Amino acid sequence: MIVVMKQHCSEEAIEHVLHFLDDHGLSGHPSRGVERTIIGVLGAVGPSGTPSSIGGINPELGEALETLPDVEQVLRVSKPYKLASREFHPEDSIIEIPAACLTEGKLHIGGNGITIMAGPCTVESEKQLMTTAAAVRKEGAVILRGGAFKPSTSPYGFRGMGEEGLKLLAKARAEFGMAVITEVMTPTDVPMVCEYADILQIGTRNMQNYMLLDEVGRVEKPVVLKRGMSATIEEWLLAAEYILAQGNRNVILCERGIRTFEKLTRNTMDISAIPLIKRLSHLPIIADPSQGTGHRDLVSPMSLAAIVAGTDGLLIEVHPNPDEALKDGAQSLTIEQFQRLMPQIQAVAGAIRREIVTG
Amino acid sequence: MIVVMKQHCSEEAIEHVLHFLDDHGLSGHPSRGVERTIIGVLGAVGPSGTPSSIGGINPELGEALETLPDVEQVLRVSKPYKLASREFHPEDSIIEIPAACLTEGKLHIGGNGITIMAGPCTVESEKQLMTTAAAVRKEGAVILRGGAFKPSTSPYGFRGMGEEGLKLLAKARAEFGMAVITEVMTPTDVPMVCEYADILQIGTRNMQNYMLLDEVGRVEKPVVLKRGMSATIEEWLLAAEYILAQGNRNVILCERGIRTFEKLTRNTMDISAIPLIKRLSHLPIIADPSQGTGHRDLVSPMSLAAIVAGTDGLLIEVHPNPDEALKDGAQSLTIEQFQRLMPQIQAVAGAIRREIVTG
Amino acid sequence: MIVVMKQHCSEEAIEHVLHFLDDHGLSGHPSRGVERTIIGVLGAVGPSGTPSSIGGINPELGEALETLPDVEQVLRVSKPYKLASREFHPEDSIIEIPAACLTEGKLHIGGNGITIMAGPCTVESEKQLMTTAAAVRKEGAVILRGGAFKPSTSPYGFRGMGEEGLKLLAKARAEFGMAVITEVMTPTDVPMVCEYADILQIGTRNMQNYMLLDEVGRVEKPVVLKRGMSATIEEWLLAAEYILAQGNRNVILCERGIRTFEKLTRNTMDISAIPLIKRLSHLPIIADPSQGTGHRDLVSPMSLAAIVAGTDGLLIEVHPNPDEALKDGAQSLTIEQFQRLMPQIQAVAGAIRREIVTG
Amino acid sequence: MIVVMKQHCSEEAIEHVLHFLDDHGLSGHPSRGVERTIIGVLGAVGPSGTPSSIGGINPELGEALETLPDVEQVLRVSKPYKLASREFHPEDSIIEIPAACLTEGKLHIGGNGITIMAGPCTVESEKQLMTTAAAVRKEGAVILRGGAFKPSTSPYGFRGMGEEGLKLLAKARAEFGMAVITEVMTPTDVPMVCEYADILQIGTRNMQNYMLLDEVGRVEKPVVLKRGMSATIEEWLLAAEYILAQGNRNVILCERGIRTFEKLTRNTMDISAIPLIKRLSHLPIIADPSQGTGHRDLVSPMSLAAIVAGTDGLLIEVHPNPDEALKDGAQSLTIEQFQRLMPQIQAVAGAIRREIVTG
Repeated sequence: MIVVMKQHCSEEAIEHVLHFLDDHGLSGHPSRGVERTIIGVLGAVGPSGTPSSIGGINPELGEALETLPDVEQVLRVSKPYKLASREFHPEDSIIEIPAACLTEGKLHIGGNGITIMAGPCTVESEKQLMTTAAAVRKEGAVILRGGAFKPSTSPYGFRGMGEEGLKLLAKARAEFGMAVITEVMTPTDVPMVCEYADILQIGTRNMQNYMLLDEVGRVEKPVVLKRGMSATIEEWLLAAEYILAQGNRNVILCERGIRTFEKLTRNTMDISAIPLIKRLSHLPIIADPSQGTGHRDLVSPMSLAAIVAGTDGLLIEVHPNPDEALKDGAQSLTIEQFQRLMPQIQAVAGAIRREIVTG
Repeated sequence: MIVVMKQHCSEEAIEHVLHFLDDHGLSGHPSRGVERTIIGVLGAVGPSGTPSSIGGINPELGEALETLPDVEQVLRVSKPYKLASREFHPEDSIIEIPAACLTEGKLHIGGNGITIMAGPCTVESEKQLMTTAAAVRKEGAVILRGGAFKPSTSPYGFRGMGEEGLKLLAKARAEFGMAVITEVMTPTDVPMVCEYADILQIGTRNMQNYMLLDEVGRVEKPVVLKRGMSATIEEWLLAAEYILAQGNRNVILCERGIRTFEKLTRNTMDISAIPLIKRLSHLPIIADPSQGTGHRDLVSPMSLAAIVAGTDGLLIEVHPNPDEALKDGAQSLTIEQFQRLMPQIQAVAGAIRREIVTG
Repeated sequence: MIVVMKQHCSEEAIEHVLHFLDDHGLSGHPSRGVERTIIGVLGAVGPSGTPSSIGGINPELGEALETLPDVEQVLRVSKPYKLASREFHPEDSIIEIPAACLTEGKLHIGGNGITIMAGPCTVESEKQLMTTAAAVRKEGAVILRGGAFKPSTSPYGFRGMGEEGLKLLAKARAEFGMAVITEVMTPTDVPMVCEYADILQIGTRNMQNYMLLDEVGRVEKPVVLKRGMSATIEEWLLAAEYILAQGNRNVILCERGIRTFEKLTRNTMDISAIPLIKRLSHLPIIADPSQGTGHRDLVSPMSLAAIVAGTDGLLIEVHPNPDEALKDGAQSLTIEQFQRLMPQIQAVAGAIRREIVTG
Repeated sequence: MIVVMKQHCSEEAIEHVLHFLDDHGLSGHPSRGVERTIIGVLGAVGPSGTPSSIGGINPELGEALETLPDVEQVLRVSKPYKLASREFHPEDSIIEIPAACLTEGKLHIGGNGITIMAGPCTVESEKQLMTTAAAVRKEGAVILRGGAFKPSTSPYGFRGMGEEGLKLLAKARAEFGMAVITEVMTPTDVPMVCEYADILQIGTRNMQNYMLLDEVGRVEKPVVLKRGMSATIEEWLLAAEYILAQGNRNVILCERGIRTFEKLTRNTMDISAIPLIKRLSHLPIIADPSQGTGHRDLVSPMSLAAIVAGTDGLLIEVHPNPDEALKDGAQSLTIEQFQRLMPQIQAVAGAIRREIVTG
């Protein structure tokens, strides 16, 4: 941290800051310039063994410093997350997905492979799920998506089939040899969802539901953490840090569009987040072009864009009959559209020398 | 709803839409224009007695319609919330706050009064809380705020004292004759927080934590529902609808700033939301200028702005010693600043003929 | 400026930065910490007599530094504007509006007075303008607004009466003893608009039309500079700096709403910009609640909010017959609404001990 | 247009709307539903031969209708732009770039080819420009970019070499057989810039500088119209419509990032705008990943993303020595980076069966 003092600040104010730092076990090194004094904060570690020591400096300290007399601003130098950072873990993390039903016993996300996850937005019936699973598996998807618990903006909307939906997902997994990803919305549901799913998904509205993050941090299942719809990349990595700090190192990030002023798309998909995350973090990142755009027509070009930008996977909504979908039909590909997309994904991945993960 | 067909759409496409509507118990009335056909959707109620009948048309139906062939767009005519709307309940709602400790036995939020709520961002110690409570009570605050469970962007930040903090709040309530408002972050904590608090607060990060909304909808305690940091006003009213639909009619909205591109403030406080909510809804609305701006210097002018714009209350962070605060010190008023603010609030409220609620 | 080096950067990289600074006439002072080295940049003035010396450090230098090897980031300590800053000019600026037609020969904007400017969005006819001017003058407005050159989002929209409109404004000025404010859209129109108007207005779409800013900087007429619809406060003050740097010190800022994700209002009016500008700058600031909200119903509460937040004036659209307006009728007050608003403005201004400027 | 009346509106209000429509040469067709009445507006053309007839309905009419008594909202059915729309011109437009210096006499933008434009952000010296032009030409760029007039956020920043810079661009063109694109900032400069450049560029800050749009609409040179940093896609197409309506049909759109809350990138590049524009308009669209991200490291992945999403060209900043650049060095590729990027562009374009345009 660097403390920037106001122009013409008093000597007492500088002393005040130095004492404050001292009281918190830090040391301050002032540089007295012609126009103003800046104080570099060095050393600075919390009590060893406690979580707060991991991040170096207590995250609230900067704010407290800003309230001292004659302090103009406090500039942060270090990143506020540690376990999620590439400095801490320079190699790319590759997340193993153990799934007994798979031919080879496991899958992975990250590394040179691109993992395709597809399925309906929401599980609506056995027929709908099985038809979709069969079709997407045939085209090369290895992970089946499908919501059993669905966040609905309206209390009068469809909120999913619940455990019944989870059972159908497990059945499809067994039948088609796919891993299953599904959303968990509240801490008390974590054990139940873990029973049926191979990957837990945290939705955009829950990215800062910290008790849910803690809870999925205490299990071993891989977790796909979607970006909050107005979360900065730093806040998103801090949310990942919550899960990592509880001990679960199997975190996969998912870009799914952010909220902007543009009205023609449901969200603005931030493709640049993909290479940025790759630089800042070792965690794999996947992309959700269905939620990211809200329009079926945009799913294919945005899938390809995510791939050349470096995504480790795609999460795509497919529905056998989108105009009968109970949820998000407008952004679901038909099975035919998905069939046309997969060879394009293959071609584009080949052009950047990456491979599609097979089950 | 109105279905707008594409230019030169086929007669079959129109028939398809009419059948679709019919299948869902709705009736469509086409107007064939020179350039295009539009289809008005009339009638349209779900099965009586079920929640989905309240809102008239199933919220997902519009999306499904948009996926039919030759449909250009679907325009929604009715508001998607009902219990929260002013059409449903034309009079202003006034929420009673029963609190045995109060001299007169109860308080209210809404109507002609303006209710002042103040206290520390987070309960840190008995001394900090009691000093603050005594001071704000003396100046005219009737409700004590203070977080026992705090959402922290970083897992290494201070997350509150938990139940210990709730006990301190209850103690301050008894001693100073104030009602208590505090945040609840997860469904399983609702009973515990209800035991100690007079008003439950749902924070900005949990505005779309639907299971938490359901849970606070099942109790009778008044609920302050903060606007999500990137929530539209419609989404915010739909979140209120979740609580109302479960039976709890004691919902108070709270504007606390939205996320924009501006970097000098923590949030951009949307003062216009106050008169807009008054037009759209019967629910009371309060304002949080501390979270809304993130800067102590801006709290006083924005408090006054909220009052003349029609707020029913203010939620203000006050700390006896902000530079020692464990959380959000930069946006907390000192006790002296709060003392200077209260007479300004009185004067400005008087100019628009509203009164400050006294305990 | 402060240069933050990457962790474990090489000694050569530090030397490289020091040489680079030296080459640009600056001196760097490294502090070698345990985790990383930071380099304070001191001294630092451009060639005297040139414009670039005013701001101290060349604005592009920071960007260039960020591209040097092993530099993590460059932190700016000083504000990039100078003439607009309160450090440069600690007293509030009060802008005189010379206008021969006024009874007392002049008006002012800034200081303890609040100046009311009202009139139609666009000059449409002599009758419309005269009726409106007479009515708003009677209620206490001292400056007449009205667009003769109008930016229209569509090329097929009404773009104003041009010089004919300016002549009508001048006629109304003479008849009612008001000063006149009107928009200028392009550098070549500045002389013509100066001939008729007392105050030039730069619209939101032209806030970064630098050649127009230069041009109005070369005249002496007061200039109202509206905030760009997605301009940060810093960019806005830099745009003001353009005008000030050319010699015209009569700059008045105008908050008129920013673009956000919210759809129910045309813009989100950033009331907090008013006290923020007061802290950062000595320039007066006024508010435009008509453009700021886009809804007639919101104009009154937002006018009052701007006043208690510290605005030096209001710019309000009034139309004798809004449903016949050629432009922005939905956000224009009727004359009756304006009549009801003025006493409220008086009452609220009185409560904060400010006075309405009379002609 | 569709006029939605308020619930329980009076019969007079409906009559009022119908008369209003009649007065403006339109006809209204009411559908009286159980809950509310909607009025379809049909017919509706302005006086033939005038510009306003092109778009069908006067763009301000909707706003005027919204102010009538008991009108709840007015829904627009038609797009407000015409010449830019794909309905008006179903085939992709291919823009010819006549340039005598080119071996084959001309280039094009649009169709199956992808046109690479590269060069320095700003022309700084003959040596800088010639070195860069030689290098990018060798790698396959056919159009040379370089700013002679530069918008600078600060009045103390570098604003370009002016006509001297244009002359250097013309010299490079002759020497390397490239076409030249450069920015024009104000109407009076259009003739001068036309003398030297093959393509005029309208920058993001000038997207709604309507007099400049009119002016470039009156020449025949191709115009690259950058998206305003907070412009919706509809506003952007309306800005294109300004140019087209004046007679210049050679308009190329350019996505260059929009302003969002994210702080780690200069802008959020909206890749989804590329396929969306392709659906709504016949105009070619190119992408600027340098301005779009602000970070050199992100330019390559975002270039590839733009290509697979359907861009017709790329505009890339390249500098022989970015750490000496006077402007935007942080986002300029080095020549080596550009050399590494071009084969990737080739490979990825090949995977989607598009070709790189050669001179």
